[in-house]
Amino acid sequence: MVYQHVPESAVPAARHQDVANRASIRRTNLGLILRRLRNVGPRSRTLLAEDLGLPKATISNLVNELVERNLVREGDVQRGGSIGRPRQAVELYGRTLCGLGVEISVDYARAIALDLRGDMILDQRITISPKQDSDALLDAVAALLARAIDRVRADGVDVIGITVAAPGEIDQDTGVVIFAANMGWSHLPIVSGLTARLGPHAPPVTLGNDARLGAIAEYAVAGTFGVHNLIYITGEVGVGAGIITNGQLFLGAAGFAGEVGHMPLDPDPQPCACGRRGCWETMVGLAALMRHAAEPDDPVRDPTRDLEDRLAEIRSRAAAGDSRTLAALDRIAHGLGLGIGLLVDILNPQAVVLGGYFAILSDHLLDTVRQVVDDRAMAPNAGGCRLLASTLGFTSAARGAAQAALESVFADPGSVSAPPDSSS
Amino acid sequence: MVYQHVPESAVPAARHQDVANRASIRRTNLGLILRRLRNVGPRSRTLLAEDLGLPKATISNLVNELVERNLVREGDVQRGGSIGRPRQAVELYGRTLCGLGVEISVDYARAIALDLRGDMILDQRITISPKQDSDALLDAVAALLARAIDRVRADGVDVIGITVAAPGEIDQDTGVVIFAANMGWSHLPIVSGLTARLGPHAPPVTLGNDARLGAIAEYAVAGTFGVHNLIYITGEVGVGAGIITNGQLFLGAAGFAGEVGHMPLDPDPQPCACGRRGCWETMVGLAALMRHAAEPDDPVRDPTRDLEDRLAEIRSRAAAGDSRTLAALDRIAHGLGLGIGLLVDILNPQAVVLGGYFAILSDHLLDTVRQVVDDRAMAPNAGGCRLLASTLGFTSAARGAAQAALESVFADPGSVSAPPDSSS
Repeated sequence: MVYQHVPESAVPAARHQDVANRASIRRTNLGLILRRLRNVGPRSRTLLAEDLGLPKATISNLVNELVERNLVREGDVQRGGSIGRPRQAVELYGRTLCGLGVEISVDYARAIALDLRGDMILDQRITISPKQDSDALLDAVAALLARAIDRVRADGVDVIGITVAAPGEIDQDTGVVIFAANMGWSHLPIVSGLTARLGPHAPPVTLGNDARLGAIAEYAVAGTFGVHNLIYITGEVGVGAGIITNGQLFLGAAGFAGEVGHMPLDPDPQPCACGRRGCWETMVGLAALMRHAAEPDDPVRDPTRDLEDRLAEIRSRAAAGDSRTLAALDRIAHGLGLGIGLLVDILNPQAVVLGGYFAILSDHLLDTVRQVVDDRAMAPNAGGCRLLASTLGFTSAARGAAQAALESVFADPGSVSAPPDSSS
Repeated sequence: MVYQHVPESAVPAARHQDVANRASIRRTNLGLILRRLRNVGPRSRTLLAEDLGLPKATISNLVNELVERNLVREGDVQRGGSIGRPRQAVELYGRTLCGLGVEISVDYARAIALDLRGDMILDQRITISPKQDSDALLDAVAALLARAIDRVRADGVDVIGITVAAPGEIDQDTGVVIFAANMGWSHLPIVSGLTARLGPHAPPVTLGNDARLGAIAEYAVAGTFGVHNLIYITGEVGVGAGIITNGQLFLGAAGFAGEVGHMPLDPDPQPCACGRRGCWETMVGLAALMRHAAEPDDPVRDPTRDLEDRLAEIRSRAAAGDSRTLAALDRIAHGLGLGIGLLVDILNPQAVVLGGYFAILSDHLLDTVRQVVDDRAMAPNAGGCRLLASTLGFTSAARGAAQAALESVFADPGSVSAPPDSSS
């Protein structure tokens, strides 16, 4: 597993001896141990006791409870230094539970399940017909989820929760997508629609914005390299952003922050699905690439074909030096640089991570984007900003959603019941 | 005084009994008391003890030290509730010291001194000739500062520090303006230049970006109304922004965040002082207003006249229904709405505060700006964002600079020596 850098709660280990609160204190401390193990990897009880400022006996007691619930296990022998006896480390286990994330995009839906260690135990996708009505689309997504749940349950893994990553403006509290131009959605109740289709025995369903959830997944990687301020930019038909500042997802006052797709940047304004003209995503989104790179009847523009296959074809053409493909990529790179330069001026991040199709085609984009950003941004050397291609490609949003679905375990490890066989 | 909402340190009251750290713990706790009094106004020792979680005897001891140093005083009698005996409140005093802020802008330099309570005890400005070379300009600013220092010292007030608010990209550590297009500055060492001119007995000089410092001053007002996420937009020749998120100034990874003036938004691109074309400040900055509103030989465009007089003239013309003036304001408002809509999409603030000339002319701008922002922003109702005109006009940057100059007192109240007469 890659240890995921996720902010630890600022709450110090709870110690208050008030009897009424003892259960909630224990819950908090169990969660702190889990988060610590997620962020730093296997660790001895002694070091955990130091980390949390709690007596070692208390830590041992808490760790025992986590072991009983299959959330951690005694791991490999670890040497604390060059002298002294070897110490046994505790590590995340949680192989018997997972979070299930599903991204719904214009071209596809993708379900990913992550176990507590962050290891991917399932990755399934379906192609979506862009003109599908929302009922048919929810039917298809529910079927994808039902198959995924059956599949992991067959392996003895429990699905703790489902998080849906959707584009557009999201009302997280009600589980409704308020508006998603490229999907043609207005006030679509995703959570209730899926819950009804999945039936009463399905795990709880929550909803989040695709770019914000993608940023969580990207930060799980970037944080381990010391990057705690970044902008993750999705590259699909729509273009969105998730902003991480000081290791936290930046949501704004009402959760809408990161809506970068409709910045009015196109000097040659084209109509956008949102009803405006000249939006950034009409310059640099997947549709613009396809429009520039190929004639309408070219197979790479056939939406019924798998998107990753179509992008592989674009890559081959670029590698073969096809001039139309290269010109299209150059145009996208210039548009990307223009918008990223602006975002760098406003937010001064340590890094901008390009996701989705930008990541798939990054070796044909990054140099030009870098050049335009350096040229556009006001701060010297673009304020030190690095430009990176996502290593997660199109999986970021679904991964981030799966991570989000696991949060309830970190918030309250006691909510996970001990498996029947562990009491033996 | 208006109680200023400034974030209190997340550090809890220090209690550690280690002798080596006792002095630093005392320093921290003295500062916490001062910050608390700044944010909530007069307060009894009992409530301060509750706020900080320290014994009342300790609080009394600390308050006594602050009284000795003239930083707080025993204030009016305060009733803690409907029953019980009246309690004497402690309040900020600090009338014998001030922070001195100076804003250097294209058209003027303005010095403002604030005492510890945030009350303005000096406000002086000079007109700057835009073509002045940087040596002559620093001479003029140093003379303004020297007069200000003499003036407050004559009233028995000590200047704790000087902070310079300048436009452009700032290196705070070295006190150098890296680049300020509208001033024609490149790598101008403001701090060393002023320090040399002011001589060895002058207070320490620091440097900050005008928009970021302005945002601190605006937040001191807005925070008291529960607005903790805002974007402050300066309106001078240059256009900059200071971003407050969760009550903190958002600086980005290297302190450059908020550079909004060069967003490439103009559909009819004009050359910008930065060398690019179509920058937002060429659409909505003061020069654009003047260009649209009046012929080159019109007295409102005479840079040797006081800017506030010239804007008063524009206001009169607008009030009299002058069609050219109204058309110019409408054009500015549309440009403002375009950029603010974009910023609202990215940052989803609770409020955008329009400063500088936008504030002076706000009654002719706000309705149209509101309309364009609602139309442009993707989130419903612009994500709940309010549009406000600054109540501080052109004083924000110099006020914020004066507040910044006072920070050393809050960081270490013990650094302020007790006045000789207080020992009697």
